[in-house]
Amino acid sequence: MDTSTLVPAPVARTNDGSPPTPRRWVRLFEEGGADQRDLLGGKGANLAEMVRMGLPVPPGFTVTTEACRATTAADGTAPSELADEVRSAIAHLEQVTGLGFGDPTAPLLLSVRSGAKFSMPGMMDTVLDLGLNPETVAGLEAKTGDRWFALDAYRRLLDLFGRVVLGVPEEQLSAAATPLLERHAVTDPSGLPVEGLEELIAAYDAAIVAATGRPFPTDPWEQLDAAILAVFRSWNGNRAVTYRRMEGISDDLGTAVNVQVMVFGNAGDDSGTGVAFTRDPATGEARPVGDFLLHAQGEDVVAGTRTTEPLSHLGAVFPECEVELLEVFRRLEERYRDLCDIEFTIEHGTLYVLQTRVGKRTALAALRIAVELVDEGVIEPAEAVARFTPDQLEMLLHPRFDPAASYEPVTRGLAASPGAAAGEVVLTADAAVARAAEGVDVLLVRPQTSPEDLHGILAARGVLTSRGGLVSHAAVVARGIGKPAVCGAADLVVDPDAGTVTIGDVVIHAGDTISIDGTSGDVVVGEVAVVAPAAPPELVRLLGWADEVRELRVLTNADTPEDARAALERGAEGIGLCRTEHQFLGDRLPLVRHVILATDDADRDEAIADLYVQQRHDFVELLEAVDGLPVTVRLLDPPLHEFLPRVEQLLVADATRGLSEEEHHLLDGALAWREDDPMLGIRGVRLGLLRPEIYAVQVRALLDAAVERSAAGGDPQVRIMIPLVSAPAELAAALAAVRAVAAEVEAAAGHPLSYEVGAMIETPRAALLAGVIAEQVDFLSFGTNDLTQMTFGFSRDDVEARLLPPYLAQGILPADPFETIDVDGVGELVRTAVERIRATDPTVDISVCGEHGGDPTSVGFFSAVGFDDVSCSPFRVPVARLAAAHAELGLLGPASHDASV
Amino acid sequence: MDTSTLVPAPVARTNDGSPPTPRRWVRLFEEGGADQRDLLGGKGANLAEMVRMGLPVPPGFTVTTEACRATTAADGTAPSELADEVRSAIAHLEQVTGLGFGDPTAPLLLSVRSGAKFSMPGMMDTVLDLGLNPETVAGLEAKTGDRWFALDAYRRLLDLFGRVVLGVPEEQLSAAATPLLERHAVTDPSGLPVEGLEELIAAYDAAIVAATGRPFPTDPWEQLDAAILAVFRSWNGNRAVTYRRMEGISDDLGTAVNVQVMVFGNAGDDSGTGVAFTRDPATGEARPVGDFLLHAQGEDVVAGTRTTEPLSHLGAVFPECEVELLEVFRRLEERYRDLCDIEFTIEHGTLYVLQTRVGKRTALAALRIAVELVDEGVIEPAEAVARFTPDQLEMLLHPRFDPAASYEPVTRGLAASPGAAAGEVVLTADAAVARAAEGVDVLLVRPQTSPEDLHGILAARGVLTSRGGLVSHAAVVARGIGKPAVCGAADLVVDPDAGTVTIGDVVIHAGDTISIDGTSGDVVVGEVAVVAPAAPPELVRLLGWADEVRELRVLTNADTPEDARAALERGAEGIGLCRTEHQFLGDRLPLVRHVILATDDADRDEAIADLYVQQRHDFVELLEAVDGLPVTVRLLDPPLHEFLPRVEQLLVADATRGLSEEEHHLLDGALAWREDDPMLGIRGVRLGLLRPEIYAVQVRALLDAAVERSAAGGDPQVRIMIPLVSAPAELAAALAAVRAVAAEVEAAAGHPLSYEVGAMIETPRAALLAGVIAEQVDFLSFGTNDLTQMTFGFSRDDVEARLLPPYLAQGILPADPFETIDVDGVGELVRTAVERIRATDPTVDISVCGEHGGDPTSVGFFSAVGFDDVSCSPFRVPVARLAAAHAELGLLGPASHDASV
Repeated sequence: MDTSTLVPAPVARTNDGSPPTPRRWVRLFEEGGADQRDLLGGKGANLAEMVRMGLPVPPGFTVTTEACRATTAADGTAPSELADEVRSAIAHLEQVTGLGFGDPTAPLLLSVRSGAKFSMPGMMDTVLDLGLNPETVAGLEAKTGDRWFALDAYRRLLDLFGRVVLGVPEEQLSAAATPLLERHAVTDPSGLPVEGLEELIAAYDAAIVAATGRPFPTDPWEQLDAAILAVFRSWNGNRAVTYRRMEGISDDLGTAVNVQVMVFGNAGDDSGTGVAFTRDPATGEARPVGDFLLHAQGEDVVAGTRTTEPLSHLGAVFPECEVELLEVFRRLEERYRDLCDIEFTIEHGTLYVLQTRVGKRTALAALRIAVELVDEGVIEPAEAVARFTPDQLEMLLHPRFDPAASYEPVTRGLAASPGAAAGEVVLTADAAVARAAEGVDVLLVRPQTSPEDLHGILAARGVLTSRGGLVSHAAVVARGIGKPAVCGAADLVVDPDAGTVTIGDVVIHAGDTISIDGTSGDVVVGEVAVVAPAAPPELVRLLGWADEVRELRVLTNADTPEDARAALERGAEGIGLCRTEHQFLGDRLPLVRHVILATDDADRDEAIADLYVQQRHDFVELLEAVDGLPVTVRLLDPPLHEFLPRVEQLLVADATRGLSEEEHHLLDGALAWREDDPMLGIRGVRLGLLRPEIYAVQVRALLDAAVERSAAGGDPQVRIMIPLVSAPAELAAALAAVRAVAAEVEAAAGHPLSYEVGAMIETPRAALLAGVIAEQVDFLSFGTNDLTQMTFGFSRDDVEARLLPPYLAQGILPADPFETIDVDGVGELVRTAVERIRATDPTVDISVCGEHGGDPTSVGFFSAVGFDDVSCSPFRVPVARLAAAHAELGLLGPASHDASV
Repeated sequence: MDTSTLVPAPVARTNDGSPPTPRRWVRLFEEGGADQRDLLGGKGANLAEMVRMGLPVPPGFTVTTEACRATTAADGTAPSELADEVRSAIAHLEQVTGLGFGDPTAPLLLSVRSGAKFSMPGMMDTVLDLGLNPETVAGLEAKTGDRWFALDAYRRLLDLFGRVVLGVPEEQLSAAATPLLERHAVTDPSGLPVEGLEELIAAYDAAIVAATGRPFPTDPWEQLDAAILAVFRSWNGNRAVTYRRMEGISDDLGTAVNVQVMVFGNAGDDSGTGVAFTRDPATGEARPVGDFLLHAQGEDVVAGTRTTEPLSHLGAVFPECEVELLEVFRRLEERYRDLCDIEFTIEHGTLYVLQTRVGKRTALAALRIAVELVDEGVIEPAEAVARFTPDQLEMLLHPRFDPAASYEPVTRGLAASPGAAAGEVVLTADAAVARAAEGVDVLLVRPQTSPEDLHGILAARGVLTSRGGLVSHAAVVARGIGKPAVCGAADLVVDPDAGTVTIGDVVIHAGDTISIDGTSGDVVVGEVAVVAPAAPPELVRLLGWADEVRELRVLTNADTPEDARAALERGAEGIGLCRTEHQFLGDRLPLVRHVILATDDADRDEAIADLYVQQRHDFVELLEAVDGLPVTVRLLDPPLHEFLPRVEQLLVADATRGLSEEEHHLLDGALAWREDDPMLGIRGVRLGLLRPEIYAVQVRALLDAAVERSAAGGDPQVRIMIPLVSAPAELAAALAAVRAVAAEVEAAAGHPLSYEVGAMIETPRAALLAGVIAEQVDFLSFGTNDLTQMTFGFSRDDVEARLLPPYLAQGILPADPFETIDVDGVGELVRTAVERIRATDPTVDISVCGEHGGDPTSVGFFSAVGFDDVSCSPFRVPVARLAAAHAELGLLGPASHDASV
């Protein structure tokens, strides 16, 4: 942490050597550095760093995050010294530039931009051209000789200031502009002639008066003070709060405000502006990429309202600037040891860098860059592991359209965020939230998105826009949260009012199903099957480095030899959960029903004997596939009625056509084993004790299979796991039965067997009594799905579709607790259990085999509380390996939510 | 605790003044006292006390519980000094009596009886007439001139010693005796002539050789050592362990052994034996009662094999002994300040007291005795409260046959244990357990019961025997565990082999239903309705004293004015839980369905308006009934499908006759709201947030009712309770909605409202986060039923009938956790929650409104962890009041079970 912010600021280096006014709340760029992100925000710290490096940065200063915190704490009143300190800093800028703030003859114009510690794209607001009013516009015109330019700058100020500082609704400003644009037959104000700009300025002035009851403040000082306070306010705006909640960023940080001398990309055809990356943020390829626009300001690039040129065309227009820019790139990568992105402006042929940061990138690019930086000798393998997050790996493994599927794209847009998705078309963010809350998969289709649409993007499976590039709002947000997006699909005509999306002759209505592939950019009408992609070659190397870092063992949940092999190929070190109920389905179902419904002991014994043969075969195959590695077999867990037909089916059949004798028998069984709440009924060890023949045949088949494998020269490593324990004595009874069968198998084999016994910790009571339970076992595995259900009192099947979407949207829960472990509730039970297990017997192996075992955040938690292994589905094994390494590096671990409410 | 056992025993007072052999493991009766129960056991301590009081006790000594513990610790090997110490004590007895142990001319005969700290009737074993062998039998005959008497004593020794010490199965000894008894046409050996006794002795001798491979040990010393060790062994016998588990007695106490000089109630017609109580243990009336038998030993009375005389007849036979006995009674009551029972023997006209103890009694007697002892100035009111347990009060309130029911008793037996029950007839203890495990209510019908039947009595709803009196095994055990029993119903012929019970012409088969009333002794074929009895007059006084003692407030669970009034009459101090779902049933159901299935807002608003009118009316009535006391209203808790028809009904109807449009609408709703596990689904606050109109109308109706009541001069004390919270933020959202409605009601009323808000702690997560939740509320109420379901993962409806009976029978759980709170699991969550609530806000009122609120053991727990109140059903309010007082007196509090496994 940067503690230097607590000591007095150093005396500034001014050009004339005179002592500056002492400042508490404001820092000139030349006073800071990249290590002062806490105080200056990310943008301010990087601007300071670039000044320190001697890069061409327009001069400016940063109002610190401390000022924001002080203002917030005082209910929006800025510290009393702030205004004077800002005036002192402006005086410095006037001295450096030779301009005057509010001076009609040589007006100093400013950009005011927010900049928090963590980048929050689209969240915070920017005001450009601050300092203009009718007099300084005239001065700017006089100085540049370009009335159009001066008016264009002024209309931009009115637009931005009106929206951002004065809170005029965007629609009102648009409504003021639209008749003008139509009359002049242009789509964008930058196409207006001088008189059109004059009309637009008058229209904006009128709209501001109409909306706020007051005219636009022409006093530059009033503009500046208001803009700074507006940035502070926007820290607590809904959009920013939503983003921080999504990203787990503390509300206490506050934002800084960067005040910088304006340079003008719209000063003429010898000017322009752009956004660039030192490496390709989509693929990771080591070559600069970006977009630029001639005769434009930065907002024109980001907004996606005008179509940009690729950076590779820059040299043709500004050859000297291109050389200078490449040198800037080289120095930034040298300094930051990573991909950087910059915003640049060329004013009358002079290059300025307006901001830089370590740039966002796709998961694919993150992987490639991390591995290549190791190859370039820039970073160590462990740092490469640290730079490629499990979330990025997940995105990389996101499904794509099945190459074998036959489909015809109706159009193609930019591949803006990888992954594929299908869903019902919704045309507004609110509709997305509403339909998703009903459990429907939706795709949000918009002309373009803005921060107002964030809740809709969060609720949708993916986003499709007709406008905007790879740095448009939709693209940036979708990549950030790992959802597929196709952007700038220009053939699309999206009409939210009519409820239609038109592509040539094709009309899609809200409610129709479409599919998008954010990796290819394809858009398809109807639903396309999706498949998991092949891993890129860099992944094997990076995961190998991860394996060297991690301490957690990664097992897999696999029930069949095929699943097991798929998991071993992905690096699993054994089976942490084999669900034997899968051995009871399919063509085994009649056998199992026979066991359940047997009328007498002989009948039942016959059914059991048949089942034994099948199961032994299954276990031999599984033990062969996972030879030499642990195979954890969970004895039957589900309630018996899952193997019987549904009562209502049989009742309807009985009422209509009558039942056969066998069906009557099934109905009796289904009625006998029907339960009100089967999740909390006769299942797991309870069923094992009530119907002991079931566990007995499972254990016998498993241990006989192990004997057979040993005889064949194999190395079976059997672990027998008892599910749904809630009392230590029921585990003791079940284990006694296991040992009794084992003794018989050993007697028949003529030699002792090596096997381990364990239990699942799935009920809150088992977690609380885990210390006592641990006395009986070799291993314990947390079933965090059931544990979550019981701790919340949530039936996943019942609440996940209907209740959790509105709960997440309203912030009642920070995450789906079935996806990411609930640290405050379930997590406390897990922590308590682990402490008690370790106190009883430090050698008991502790694992998790719920779906949380493959969730990175949850893996961080399990690592932190001292688990020995995690077990997850075969597909998620790579993610778990990487997450385990990140956990070891201290990079994971979810924040508490409720405990701090 | 008696720490005197740790210091060396005092030097004994011997008759001749010579120093006795120093002893560690043995105490003469004259060395002890009533305060040494830990060391001497209850029986030994009381024998010592009676010797100290100068009462006529046959001399003897006690082998201490320390000796038992040392022997158990050494795997059954007695301490090496024990044999010498016993010989030294026997020498003392020989000196006192002038007899010789094993002396054929004047044989000293002994009784050997167990005696643990806590009375364990029927659990431990007794050997009489120890010291007899063929030579001493001859000596006894010579000394008494009564060969029959000597032989009768010897056959008793062979029988008891064979069973208890040598472990010969009772059936084998019975089988040896039966042909003899039949040949002599007697039912009992005491009816045999001399030659019959000689044959019986030979038969027993042969049976002992057949069963053990060795003859009966004729060496008296061998007999004595073996008998002492057998008593020690029996401490860990199954029956004793089962009883201790049932009563919560520690296995570590061990038992003492009392060795006492025999006196003979069977010495002739001038002899006899009996059992007596200083007050009537059935009614509590202050007059001595008991049973005696002429020419018999004590076991004949207890066994119930011969019909006894009432104690009131004693004076006619032994007038001097009666006077002496009454004086013994007076002195015992003076010493013990309570009802005492004694076992006495008259040998040739001389009275001996063989043992005494503070006697067991019916609940009714306990109440009356406690209150009358206060009136007699013997004890203080608080001690009277302490002496009448909540369990006894429960028994007192046990149901009886409905006086309005019309039934014809098929016979009548002794009213052996109060309460009435109906159930299926089972004729063996094993059958009782098996059928009960299937969820069937059973009545155990036996000729008589023995300790081998204990598991059957525990499993049955009640017991019916054809033989035995009020102190028979069945009667004592049934009273102890609070189950109804009718004993000695002599008209019954019970034939377990044939599976029938015959009463004259009536033949009842196993599986038929009968009813018994243990308060009247009635036996009825078929099922008779049962009702709660009227409270005896002493109860009001005792509960008044309890109210002065207790700190816990006792509220009630009541949904209607009728329930509320019933509870207030029983002493409730307000409503702790009003379940509003009851307002939604009956003729309201169509309104509620209308709300659920409303097709548009207008339709729904109309339904809501109708519901409002009904609910406001309900609340006005309830607030009027409970004016001036808290009324805690829980907003709707159950899932919506509970108000809709069952899906399968509608599907069957649809398939057979077709559905009306309205029914189709109902089916759609039932399908939409159907859940897999409704207990964990959309209910409670979740439903309240998804369908906000429901809570809104409830709160509006309730607060408008409060305004109406206030305007009418009432004092409504409204508490609004939110159910099924699992996240603090969902409570916050629900409370915000409550406050919004309240603000509207206040605005309409024109004055502020006084009401409290609270939440239920029902999910494990709410318990863990209770500290955060407490910040938002005035009160919190634990719903321990749901909390138990979720902590165990038990659906009460699904597991209580099918799973818990075998779990309890196998000792997997110590008690039904839905009846008595599970201290180890659920209890830890409750304790943790209370600590966190108190840390947040010590003023938050903490309550429980699950059924545990009326369970005495659970009330003890809630008191210990610091609850402010309990809420229970109206019927259980008196029990809760008494339990709260007992808790305050430190008399309650369940032991841990699993944590010590």
